[in-house]
Amino acid sequence: MASGAQMEKKGITAVDDSSARPSSQIPGLGHCSDTRDEKRAHGRRTGVVETDSDYVKLAKQGGQQEFQRSPTKGSFQPLAAPFGTDNKTTWEREGDNFTADKDKFVCVGGSANRMKAFAQFIFKELELKGDCNDIDDICAGTDRYSMYKAGPVLSISHGMGVPSISIMMHELIKLLHHARCRDVTLIRIGTSGGVGLEPGTVVITDTAVDSFFQPQFEQVVLGKVIVRSTQLDENLAQELLQCGKEIPNLPTVLGNTMCTHDFYEGQGRLDGALCSFSTEDKLEYLRKAHEAGVRNIEMESTVFAAMCRVCGLKGIFFADSYRQ
Amino acid sequence: MASGAQMEKKGITAVDDSSARPSSQIPGLGHCSDTRDEKRAHGRRTGVVETDSDYVKLAKQGGQQEFQRSPTKGSFQPLAAPFGTDNKTTWEREGDNFTADKDKFVCVGGSANRMKAFAQFIFKELELKGDCNDIDDICAGTDRYSMYKAGPVLSISHGMGVPSISIMMHELIKLLHHARCRDVTLIRIGTSGGVGLEPGTVVITDTAVDSFFQPQFEQVVLGKVIVRSTQLDENLAQELLQCGKEIPNLPTVLGNTMCTHDFYEGQGRLDGALCSFSTEDKLEYLRKAHEAGVRNIEMESTVFAAMCRVCGLKGIFFADSYRQ
Repeated sequence: MASGAQMEKKGITAVDDSSARPSSQIPGLGHCSDTRDEKRAHGRRTGVVETDSDYVKLAKQGGQQEFQRSPTKGSFQPLAAPFGTDNKTTWEREGDNFTADKDKFVCVGGSANRMKAFAQFIFKELELKGDCNDIDDICAGTDRYSMYKAGPVLSISHGMGVPSISIMMHELIKLLHHARCRDVTLIRIGTSGGVGLEPGTVVITDTAVDSFFQPQFEQVVLGKVIVRSTQLDENLAQELLQCGKEIPNLPTVLGNTMCTHDFYEGQGRLDGALCSFSTEDKLEYLRKAHEAGVRNIEMESTVFAAMCRVCGLKGIFFADSYRQ
Repeated sequence: MASGAQMEKKGITAVDDSSARPSSQIPGLGHCSDTRDEKRAHGRRTGVVETDSDYVKLAKQGGQQEFQRSPTKGSFQPLAAPFGTDNKTTWEREGDNFTADKDKFVCVGGSANRMKAFAQFIFKELELKGDCNDIDDICAGTDRYSMYKAGPVLSISHGMGVPSISIMMHELIKLLHHARCRDVTLIRIGTSGGVGLEPGTVVITDTAVDSFFQPQFEQVVLGKVIVRSTQLDENLAQELLQCGKEIPNLPTVLGNTMCTHDFYEGQGRLDGALCSFSTEDKLEYLRKAHEAGVRNIEMESTVFAAMCRVCGLKGIFFADSYRQ
């Protein structure tokens, strides 16, 4: 029923990630050339002008394929500043104990202070050279988000809610493209309201669902609603679940994560400025959510999952839960 | 057509602000007692327990009426810390040149740094006693938002997007209630993408509209979509427009402000990581928006307007525009 409610809207286009991806400014993402008609492609090609940045020129000319897949060694093209002028990525050129063959991670969370602390924690855990207190905010000077780098790990804050994290995701994916980073794993770490769980339980997200318990994210594009899948990487989830089980006294479960667009009314809180429902209404909703496989509630998972999937990034989501 | 698309969803309840407001935890807001049935009211009344905070006890017992309306002088009840222990509000007790009869303002904007600078600017403009650099962030220690107070003006950051500002709005309205502030004017100040305007034009929002150009905000409450009106205070808009006209070289217009849930695809940007449309598609959408009275685009206006209206707060919204 809830699904029906969603699907009755005019203008909805169900997007299959494999065959009809939305095309992307990042060349190689979204099958631009397969879906764009000749007139548009022509308009794009002829649109290259002197004042375009290298990125825009690259995008307009069809750009580089195989984004996010490991290229053959030595096949890198020279990069313009600020990403370097040799054939290696910034991360590959680093003097730490990670090489191009090792995994690279982007860990994201809501709070700037927490993501700084996380970067310092990772710095120490990985026994990197230097002082962890010297890690600077790469994005200092803007309030949009903070970004810290500790060896092969980027730690980024994204603020609260779907619109806020979506801005960061767009810009992060462009950054990874420019920095020629492949095989990156995106991990969202956060807090969440647990549903039917003991506080402190870690929930690894199997699928992100919306307020109607549907595994989808609605993206409005020029006034039309497009529906994107929010399924996350299954292998990664299982791997993380195994890690959790190996740590003593760390209850870890796999489940659906519900993403709401509001902290108070959307999640059934009784202490917001507005509250038109009773405790019974709240508990009934949470009971239905639990039946639908929801184990925790937060505010960013659907767009995170949808963008990871559309852009071919390996993404995973886990959160410590408090009592909802 | 766009409206039809929105209204076909199941579970939609059109909320009239005058007769069927959603009831609120803030006693006196939302006509709780008019709309709540006996069983629920009974459940609430008997739910008061020792461990409840004073606020929760007050709410459960029906609480204080006439929120946001000026009480008769001297009718204040004693307040608990941190808001004071005498019969006056924090603002009334202040040693600056404002009294209880003067207007009180809450100015909000996205960036924490900018809202600090704004508080310092106001501090100087109002010639308050002391050093404007001594203004502390009242909400230091959390990344949710920053809050500064300069005489009768609170300056608060709210991050990016509807979910982020909605958290701040819920908590602000509770704060105003606890602090017994009446006759507060809420002003959102920001930047926005101008539609058919010269960059630098200030847009005063007449009505906030969604991506389908409809004057409404969809709030999901326990899995049901409620539609709220986004009409802002007309008198305040006209007053502000007049102020704008009196300032030389400050082009100021009154118009609709469109609120999107995404900065890139939602606003027709061609430089996001995902972009499935052409320049022509973008321009066509912006042309339609302009025909619908939209003069600028941003990411918070609908929920701001809807919450102001539902809670009986005088709200206004204006933004400097850059080229969309």
